[in-house]
Amino acid sequence: MTHRIAIIGAGHVGATAAYALMLRALVREIVLIDANQELAEAEAADLADADALARPARIWAGDYADAASAGIAVLTAGAATHGDESRLSVASRSAAIVEQCVASLMDNGFDGILLVAANPVDLMAQVALRASGLPPERVIGTGTLLDSARLRQTLAERFDVAPSAVEGFVLGEHGDSEVAVFSTIRVGGLPLDTFAAAEPPLDRAAIATEVREAGYRIATGKGYTSFGIATAIVRICEAVLRDERSVLPVSTMPADDSGFGGTYMSLPCLVGAGGIERQVLPELTDEERDALKRSSKALEDAMEGMKRDSA
Amino acid sequence: MTHRIAIIGAGHVGATAAYALMLRALVREIVLIDANQELAEAEAADLADADALARPARIWAGDYADAASAGIAVLTAGAATHGDESRLSVASRSAAIVEQCVASLMDNGFDGILLVAANPVDLMAQVALRASGLPPERVIGTGTLLDSARLRQTLAERFDVAPSAVEGFVLGEHGDSEVAVFSTIRVGGLPLDTFAAAEPPLDRAAIATEVREAGYRIATGKGYTSFGIATAIVRICEAVLRDERSVLPVSTMPADDSGFGGTYMSLPCLVGAGGIERQVLPELTDEERDALKRSSKALEDAMEGMKRDSA
Amino acid sequence: MTHRIAIIGAGHVGATAAYALMLRALVREIVLIDANQELAEAEAADLADADALARPARIWAGDYADAASAGIAVLTAGAATHGDESRLSVASRSAAIVEQCVASLMDNGFDGILLVAANPVDLMAQVALRASGLPPERVIGTGTLLDSARLRQTLAERFDVAPSAVEGFVLGEHGDSEVAVFSTIRVGGLPLDTFAAAEPPLDRAAIATEVREAGYRIATGKGYTSFGIATAIVRICEAVLRDERSVLPVSTMPADDSGFGGTYMSLPCLVGAGGIERQVLPELTDEERDALKRSSKALEDAMEGMKRDSA
Amino acid sequence: MTHRIAIIGAGHVGATAAYALMLRALVREIVLIDANQELAEAEAADLADADALARPARIWAGDYADAASAGIAVLTAGAATHGDESRLSVASRSAAIVEQCVASLMDNGFDGILLVAANPVDLMAQVALRASGLPPERVIGTGTLLDSARLRQTLAERFDVAPSAVEGFVLGEHGDSEVAVFSTIRVGGLPLDTFAAAEPPLDRAAIATEVREAGYRIATGKGYTSFGIATAIVRICEAVLRDERSVLPVSTMPADDSGFGGTYMSLPCLVGAGGIERQVLPELTDEERDALKRSSKALEDAMEGMKRDSA
Repeated sequence: MTHRIAIIGAGHVGATAAYALMLRALVREIVLIDANQELAEAEAADLADADALARPARIWAGDYADAASAGIAVLTAGAATHGDESRLSVASRSAAIVEQCVASLMDNGFDGILLVAANPVDLMAQVALRASGLPPERVIGTGTLLDSARLRQTLAERFDVAPSAVEGFVLGEHGDSEVAVFSTIRVGGLPLDTFAAAEPPLDRAAIATEVREAGYRIATGKGYTSFGIATAIVRICEAVLRDERSVLPVSTMPADDSGFGGTYMSLPCLVGAGGIERQVLPELTDEERDALKRSSKALEDAMEGMKRDSA
Repeated sequence: MTHRIAIIGAGHVGATAAYALMLRALVREIVLIDANQELAEAEAADLADADALARPARIWAGDYADAASAGIAVLTAGAATHGDESRLSVASRSAAIVEQCVASLMDNGFDGILLVAANPVDLMAQVALRASGLPPERVIGTGTLLDSARLRQTLAERFDVAPSAVEGFVLGEHGDSEVAVFSTIRVGGLPLDTFAAAEPPLDRAAIATEVREAGYRIATGKGYTSFGIATAIVRICEAVLRDERSVLPVSTMPADDSGFGGTYMSLPCLVGAGGIERQVLPELTDEERDALKRSSKALEDAMEGMKRDSA
Repeated sequence: MTHRIAIIGAGHVGATAAYALMLRALVREIVLIDANQELAEAEAADLADADALARPARIWAGDYADAASAGIAVLTAGAATHGDESRLSVASRSAAIVEQCVASLMDNGFDGILLVAANPVDLMAQVALRASGLPPERVIGTGTLLDSARLRQTLAERFDVAPSAVEGFVLGEHGDSEVAVFSTIRVGGLPLDTFAAAEPPLDRAAIATEVREAGYRIATGKGYTSFGIATAIVRICEAVLRDERSVLPVSTMPADDSGFGGTYMSLPCLVGAGGIERQVLPELTDEERDALKRSSKALEDAMEGMKRDSA
Repeated sequence: MTHRIAIIGAGHVGATAAYALMLRALVREIVLIDANQELAEAEAADLADADALARPARIWAGDYADAASAGIAVLTAGAATHGDESRLSVASRSAAIVEQCVASLMDNGFDGILLVAANPVDLMAQVALRASGLPPERVIGTGTLLDSARLRQTLAERFDVAPSAVEGFVLGEHGDSEVAVFSTIRVGGLPLDTFAAAEPPLDRAAIATEVREAGYRIATGKGYTSFGIATAIVRICEAVLRDERSVLPVSTMPADDSGFGGTYMSLPCLVGAGGIERQVLPELTDEERDALKRSSKALEDAMEGMKRDSA
């Protein structure tokens, strides 16, 4: 594993992820790549300003040749949305950008882990898989890691405990069809109903909606999201760079015997130096399993629609 | 010293400083305050998303009552620039905002350290001093801490050494009249000329210009600056919160016997739990001393101009 | 919560805990107190040597007056074992030392959290509770936090996952009657049998024995234990200092309705600024509940025996 | 640079260095090697206990084959002192141990940086240089890094400033002939006399003696030293692993044109991924230069004496 991370796309997400990687001292070299070279240089200069005040890392605006030796390439580039354009149309344009970025990476001999954060992330990760020719364990989407963190944070606040004392996953699509899998939740090691036995029952549907729509609310208020998703990127990079073999909900191609096959979506995965080392499918209620199947189907339909759109 | 920091102004600088404070685990509570409540709430929500993936801190969009018990209030709010408006006019409008924010803070019983990052920072720190009635050691401007870091970083790259191996200060105004005090520079403990004896002489004027104009170049490329100044804010907060008594170049009211009296500008200061514990004036060449006096005079003139403008 | 921790007992455990607190930058001031003043001064000097190379903390050899304002007092002092002396006799002598230390603390006006690491830790924590007159939520024993970490580490190695991917508790006495509560274990969010369905069954009794006897093996090899227990101390201090409200298995007085009342032993507890904020009793199998009752009874008998011994 | 560090010698220094490396999360793998295999296993087990409570690293008791792929091998093994044995005789026995350890390392194909902490460190580093056949830039002695930290810490306390605000070096032998080079000292960027102009003059000889004898005092009080030297080891490892190119006073073979040639002793060195990248000889007063020459001569004599002793 080299000490270099390449970040493709120097917008808010990419630049903020670079900043967090620098503050966490996780890597020695960070290269920012953007079609807008002036932007990449300005972000690199702003980050380099921070360097003498933090632990040293080398950060620069570079090109795909610089990314060739990176251990991880983080793909944050995607299409901007314009007014009333359909989501499908935006997805198709993002897919074209992702394909082009990945082709440039591979042409330069990249042979690391590809971490996709561009949205819609499940579709873009699958596009990146095909465009790269890399094995699926080395193409990871940020998926519902952020949604799961939101769910844990929401419950932690509700019960006045540390977020680390809440375990549990949001799985499936990172988006409208995602599934807050309440049966996986443990608070202080206890199932939700046991921990909260003395309290009025939770409105689970309302919590799931709050979690699912958090990103929209943030984007409405500040125009984009950055800190949450950047931190999710850094968390996955950390698990890979330190070969942690931690279990994180990230977007992957479900195993054939999972019952969810065919399209990238988030499942709990063991993440280490090799990327996704194993999928860890939780025990699900029938209802949860059905909801995840609907989520998988929604992604499959979107993938098909995107292909037709770009055909 | 309480475990709370208040950040007034939830724009790029304020929100990024909150993010860095969270990643560094420096405080337990961060309250974001902004006239645009929707923005403050969106930034707080985006930051809270990161919380379950990092070390826990409580971050929320609050009001001045929440800031009353903060150990440090960081002031990043200022006027936006509009087209061809004069700098003086912008400064006058920023001063009005600073006065209003500081008045709200003090009305709520704030009794901590006031750290001013709003630009033009030397003038705004002085405005905050007057508006707060706090003793000068407790009203600090971020000043040339960032410029000094840039100078160290620039020389570190030139000589291929760690930024921490380069000591030295940019002093005076954070802006056009600032002075890169080359006589204070040590590389690996050696004066600049000794360390670099074997190399062609440095173009000091070019380096000073590059450092002075770095912020403009970044703002041109990305529309604003955020990571560098946020890291400078965090560095000062750390020195205060941990009572470090580190020597940092920050904006302060120069001591009467310094020869630079009357207007806030940056000098090396011992920063600890009480704010600025001592000014540490370096030995200066005659040329450097004259340049600093011109910088002080420029700030005095600007202060006067601002007063006339608002009169 | 002040920025000071007092460590009473400057032996291997106390000094190593001070070192870890310093490296983690958790507090600003650490005072070491030991009946052997020369030892305390030597350890403080050795630690202070590290200070200029790490993040600054003030560490000194002090007295109980210095401990009065500490937020946490860590009690590591106890009786040394001599040849063939009975465990009961050693416990009685340790109890006398703990009583004396706690009396000195309280005489000086200590009003923080008392964290007991002296062995046998459950008995010593209970002795400290009585001697201090503090409410039980503020007298915490390190208990089975270390045993639980060992269990998680052992399973993490067995399954080649991160220790953080393994949840689960050892409860009851920190010692011979402790109970590895396998029904609480989750690996990657799955119950043990589900995660390891494809593997030969675990020899749970052998693993429990390995965990229980790890300390003896280490003490045989190096003469004492230090790094593990010091890290457990730091983990509890961190949860208190940062008001984390994390769930940790620590020694406490079981709640009346728990069925284990009367004697300190380890249960999962929510730990925050106020000490133990809540006990979180897991769902237990009948067998586990019986084993915990036997552990509680063993501790009760030991407590009685110790009283008779010192009578 | 691999993610593995080998520590040869699992005594107090080696084990404590492993603990600090783990807490700082600097490497992924730490192998402990000791002729006393039972000790190495006990220390590794004690450290592994800490693992589930800290950030994960793999620590085990291994052999020289495990060290072959390490990026850094830290040599802490040396002879124990017995009663009234002469220092020369102890040094000769330590040299034999160092030679044997280094031979075993090289036989297994080690090709990293060799960091020597065994005492007398200057002689042992030189013995390791010869035994290894490695180029001198890759054989580093911990030297006076610790003494320099002590000097900075002592002055920081005297002037009530952060240790990081004090720069300056102790150079030459790590031991009786070492030289506190007061002309290199800067406090807050100022020469010592300027910073402290308002205070009574320092008793420099007394301070130098206090620094030089600190290790003896600690060893008298606790039987050995561990935390300071372990932290110095970690600081050098960090500079290498992160390719920092920081300037640290460490033991090296002085450059031919330095005037101190022939025997390992401490000089300020630029330390990075390649080991010692450059020596940075400070400007010295005549008195300081003479004292350093005497220190070099003392080391040369000791080296000769050791050769005769072992002949």
